[in-house]
Amino acid sequence: MGNTGLKSVLKKKLQYKVVGSLRIECGGERFFGPGRVELLEHIEVTGSLNKAAKQMGMSYKKAWEMINALNAQAATPLVVTQTGGEKGGGSAISAEARQLIEYHRGLRQRFEHFLAEETNNFNAAGL
Amino acid sequence: MGNTGLKSVLKKKLQYKVVGSLRIECGGERFFGPGRVELLEHIEVTGSLNKAAKQMGMSYKKAWEMINALNAQAATPLVVTQTGGEKGGGSAISAEARQLIEYHRGLRQRFEHFLAEETNNFNAAGL
Repeated sequence: MGNTGLKSVLKKKLQYKVVGSLRIECGGERFFGPGRVELLEHIEVTGSLNKAAKQMGMSYKKAWEMINALNAQAATPLVVTQTGGEKGGGSAISAEARQLIEYHRGLRQRFEHFLAEETNNFNAAGL
Repeated sequence: MGNTGLKSVLKKKLQYKVVGSLRIECGGERFFGPGRVELLEHIEVTGSLNKAAKQMGMSYKKAWEMINALNAQAATPLVVTQTGGEKGGGSAISAEARQLIEYHRGLRQRFEHFLAEETNNFNAAGL
């Protein structure tokens, strides 16, 4: 796998690293990736879209749009917002959102594994 | 692998797609990725850094900096530039650059395979 020799190409210091990014698209548009995972996790902890947005240094409008898109792309709402009430409403993530976060965690792990393996391959090809 | 059910999360249309990007870093800095591959390939075809830059809609300065960084990060120069002469010099890629491009092609293929498999997994988890 990948054994084209790179002996005279790479410096012999094992300092090369294969890195990358991953996201899930839905109908060609961004659906789920690290940013949305982080936003959902902040909503889960704070119970508030406003606080979650602040913690991410993001405008409320942008956070609201992200959640709105997410909810439209999924079969079941991932974030449920209560308006009004004593505390002026709040937001919570659904059980489905937790399932998606869990799936995404596994996907990330498999990707990290792929990257680590390719980093090893690449450096080995230079030896 | 990734069998957390997403039955009530995903819309039943197999329209989700796992996508991503990949690059090779050297000492924490960008070393090799699709942009540099493209630049090397244009240099190979045109024999000129200036023409290659133009074809990519990139300034000569930026292209020169990319090549300069590449050459410094590799054990052997990947692009050799002749100054002067009848045609006012020209650029060519080295055999080592071709080896690296070839290795990168294999890496991309393995990544595409990973993405296709994960796309299938993800959509299957929603069924």
